[in-house]
Amino acid sequence: MFDVFARNCTSRETMEHVTGRWGTLAMVALLDGTTRFNALRRRVDGISEKMLSQTLHALERDGLVLREAKPTIPPHVEYSLTPMGRDVAGKLFDFIELLESRMPEVMAARAEYDAR
Amino acid sequence: MFDVFARNCTSRETMEHVTGRWGTLAMVALLDGTTRFNALRRRVDGISEKMLSQTLHALERDGLVLREAKPTIPPHVEYSLTPMGRDVAGKLFDFIELLESRMPEVMAARAEYDAR
Repeated sequence: MFDVFARNCTSRETMEHVTGRWGTLAMVALLDGTTRFNALRRRVDGISEKMLSQTLHALERDGLVLREAKPTIPPHVEYSLTPMGRDVAGKLFDFIELLESRMPEVMAARAEYDAR
Repeated sequence: MFDVFARNCTSRETMEHVTGRWGTLAMVALLDGTTRFNALRRRVDGISEKMLSQTLHALERDGLVLREAKPTIPPHVEYSLTPMGRDVAGKLFDFIELLESRMPEVMAARAEYDAR
């Protein structure tokens, strides 16, 4: 019914929110638990305030991330994963863990490719 | 040792090749087996020739995809996953399968969000 390979399928759009330039890092960072905006920005090294805000907004609308504005003084905003978000982020974590573990092989492949 | 959260880590770059705009779809499409360039382009609906070429090139250099030019007349080029590429694509497949299965929930969340 849903098929990410079809360009107009809604699932393609959600996949792009979740992968995209920053989605994967934001989702996996939130696996550590509820996080304030600024802490999340420090964790996802290199992301701009604007990009983090856009990324979180798309993930919130898709029901993957929960945004809570705390009525503290000064006010602050906390983000967490919804149950569905945790399931999806778990898959992304598995992917990242594998990728990191295989990086020596990736770097050897690059060296070989560049030496051709 | 490798940490995708660090902006200058090589693993961040490889993660972006694999996720990015088209990496995930190209990798998962190749799980079906060796595929010619044009067939891959049809499968990854919406990708341009240039983007598919760039995507495959980065994945080849990272040792995830194997490119073979067949000396046929006319010549044609085939792509397949390396053993490491298959492992990585398997994780992406798990992610996509979960995401597609949860799309009704995503769409309900969007409707609720937009109705606020």
